Amino acid sequence: MSPSAAQLDEQRLARAALTYLAEPGDPALGALLAICEPAEVLAAIKAGMLPGTGPGCGDTAASRAALERALGRWRLRLPELPDDAGVVAAGGDDIRLICPGDPEWPGGLDDLGRARPYALWLRGRSDLGGSSLRSVSMVGSRAATGYGTHVAGEIAADLGERGWTIVSGGAYGIDAAVHRGALVMHAITIAVLACGVDYPYPAGHADLFANIAAEGLVVSEWPPGRRPARLRFLVRNRVIASLTSGTVVVEAGERSGALNTARHAAGLGRVLMAVPGPVTSAQSAGCHRLIRDWGATLVTRAADIIEMLSPIGTADVPTADPAKRPRPPSVGLPACGPPDQGAPPSDSLPSRDDLDEDSARVLDAFPARAHVWPATIAVDAGVDLDTVLRCLGPLAAYGFIERCDNGWRLRRPGPPGR
Amino acid sequence: MSPSAAQLDEQRLARAALTYLAEPGDPALGALLAICEPAEVLAAIKAGMLPGTGPGCGDTAASRAALERALGRWRLRLPELPDDAGVVAAGGDDIRLICPGDPEWPGGLDDLGRARPYALWLRGRSDLGGSSLRSVSMVGSRAATGYGTHVAGEIAADLGERGWTIVSGGAYGIDAAVHRGALVMHAITIAVLACGVDYPYPAGHADLFANIAAEGLVVSEWPPGRRPARLRFLVRNRVIASLTSGTVVVEAGERSGALNTARHAAGLGRVLMAVPGPVTSAQSAGCHRLIRDWGATLVTRAADIIEMLSPIGTADVPTADPAKRPRPPSVGLPACGPPDQGAPPSDSLPSRDDLDEDSARVLDAFPARAHVWPATIAVDAGVDLDTVLRCLGPLAAYGFIERCDNGWRLRRPGPPGR
Repeated sequence: MSPSAAQLDEQRLARAALTYLAEPGDPALGALLAICEPAEVLAAIKAGMLPGTGPGCGDTAASRAALERALGRWRLRLPELPDDAGVVAAGGDDIRLICPGDPEWPGGLDDLGRARPYALWLRGRSDLGGSSLRSVSMVGSRAATGYGTHVAGEIAADLGERGWTIVSGGAYGIDAAVHRGALVMHAITIAVLACGVDYPYPAGHADLFANIAAEGLVVSEWPPGRRPARLRFLVRNRVIASLTSGTVVVEAGERSGALNTARHAAGLGRVLMAVPGPVTSAQSAGCHRLIRDWGATLVTRAADIIEMLSPIGTADVPTADPAKRPRPPSVGLPACGPPDQGAPPSDSLPSRDDLDEDSARVLDAFPARAHVWPATIAVDAGVDLDTVLRCLGPLAAYGFIERCDNGWRLRRPGPPGR
Repeated sequence: MSPSAAQLDEQRLARAALTYLAEPGDPALGALLAICEPAEVLAAIKAGMLPGTGPGCGDTAASRAALERALGRWRLRLPELPDDAGVVAAGGDDIRLICPGDPEWPGGLDDLGRARPYALWLRGRSDLGGSSLRSVSMVGSRAATGYGTHVAGEIAADLGERGWTIVSGGAYGIDAAVHRGALVMHAITIAVLACGVDYPYPAGHADLFANIAAEGLVVSEWPPGRRPARLRFLVRNRVIASLTSGTVVVEAGERSGALNTARHAAGLGRVLMAVPGPVTSAQSAGCHRLIRDWGATLVTRAADIIEMLSPIGTADVPTADPAKRPRPPSVGLPACGPPDQGAPPSDSLPSRDDLDEDSARVLDAFPARAHVWPATIAVDAGVDLDTVLRCLGPLAAYGFIERCDNGWRLRRPGPPGR
């Protein structure tokens, strides 16, 4: 969905502009946004004059000086800032912006406090907020072993088959293996990049990112076109950790960047998990350290991960838990195929009968072949808007519905009897 | 040291006889031995009449009936019991018996309460009590993988090089790998068997057991000549767990007997550790379960194990901790050689200068080339007998001294300056 000028109101446009001017996680901008509207901050940057700051902004001489320095940094990038139409048109047809407060904005990001993203650029049609309700981050080394990529792919596929969303980076090695595992199952998988969502880094992953955008989402705090940089990967890691209720490190050497993501997850109170490996493998040493010294839970398979996350992960979603339903013994991993073969096998996802009353009512209010806005659904379903918004994400995560240019629509054929 | 009739007094002889008549861990015999002298119990079995039991014996009708049944069981084996001279001569020249209360009796065994061994048959000259002060049990699957046997051998060799005693069973797979790893370092290694110490089971391990007896000890609760039986391995496991302050499971399937040893270790309050492996290996599934569900500590190398055990293991030993001393970088594992090449490399063990005052004084009291009894050392060193007994084990574990037929003697050449 390409953002239109109407959708991008002044504050949204300002947030979009700020992603061009400031690096994500900039404490000075975080402090300003805690007390000023984004448009006010943007105007101040353009004017070269700090907005009037009160005591809430830590208005000491020292913080004032830090803000002045930050202002200078941000102004250096003003020449790179497109005009409003350019911001709106950024990236092309399939890129959109979401901002704090949007129904799709994942609540987990707000746990970052002032380090919360100013906004997120999204490529793909899945609902980020809904998908992340039942999601797990899987990260690991770029220099993964055959063992690591095999295990990462198997676990991600199994999680995807059971209706879980995978979140990872976009690197070679473990990141790519988990996305590919999820894609085999046509599960929602989310790549959080340290560059623009249209910037193919690494170049060899351009097709992978296109496939991810087709089934899930490519996400970034940086605006379209922005190149990656070394520090950006570390800043990006806090988003991977905060989006989900748990992070699994599949393979990591003693100095792997995956341990940085693990540190964020632990700091945010997320469930930290690690997959063990041979003690003779340097690529498992970081995982073993996480288990031994950081209290990470040892996990060996998807069921272990679901067990760890379910008390938290299912608190706000429909009562159906595919992991707890008996699975036909004859259903294993299907053969690897192209990622556009259709919806996931229906036996691995809950049917309408598994939904709680609200979710079922919301789902029943969807028209068979047309798109619809949440407010319309609320009226047709006879529930309030909050209930609709609460149900949309899980219904999308379960594959019943999907976001489209003009709201939402059914994704799977309706169950028999509707 | 072959036991002489003089050494085996009446009570010791009775305990030796009881190992012929009752299975280890028999609760009825444990209950009787808690209130009666061994000779009294033996006489009662021979007479077919229970000794007079008081309230301490749980003298209810039910327990009385259980004791009567046990008496019948024990009497069935009376025809197999050698006469006194036969018991004394059991097994041959290099087999001896130790009993509760002996200076060499390991205190850890007493944690078994009424399931404490009636006595232990030993083959080899190392001091069991002293060796076990600084020891670790390493157990695992018979159906070990190449990964498991490799890791088991490496860790055992490293522990042995640092002055730690290894305790395990006598099976193929992990048990054999840890003994061989320790033997490479000429470290003390202890095989606890589920059959007589002279009974070669498995037959392919006859040479291994001979090598273990030459460097360490082969230990059993069963009398010489006794065959193994399935349940005996499980009964034996409590001895492996209780002898040491910690148990490491190197490789174990979901139903491995090693998990039974782990259960004993946990029940006895010992430190429980496990080595992880590939999650794709069924032989590591038991280890992963121990870490995940039992709270076992993940360990990947000897240093991890020493760190876990040192707060307990070094409480009563000389202050020198070889693990904490810098090791010359050029010293790695020496090439595999026959186990009779002499003492361990001196750089891996503490020197006399590292000993605490008592241990140094006891060591100095040893004559250069003669054997000596603890009482003589106490007089010569000017310390009390308890102090001597406390120091002998660690000094033996560190390779300074060894037990011999007529007491103790120096093992290593005296340090320069003596």
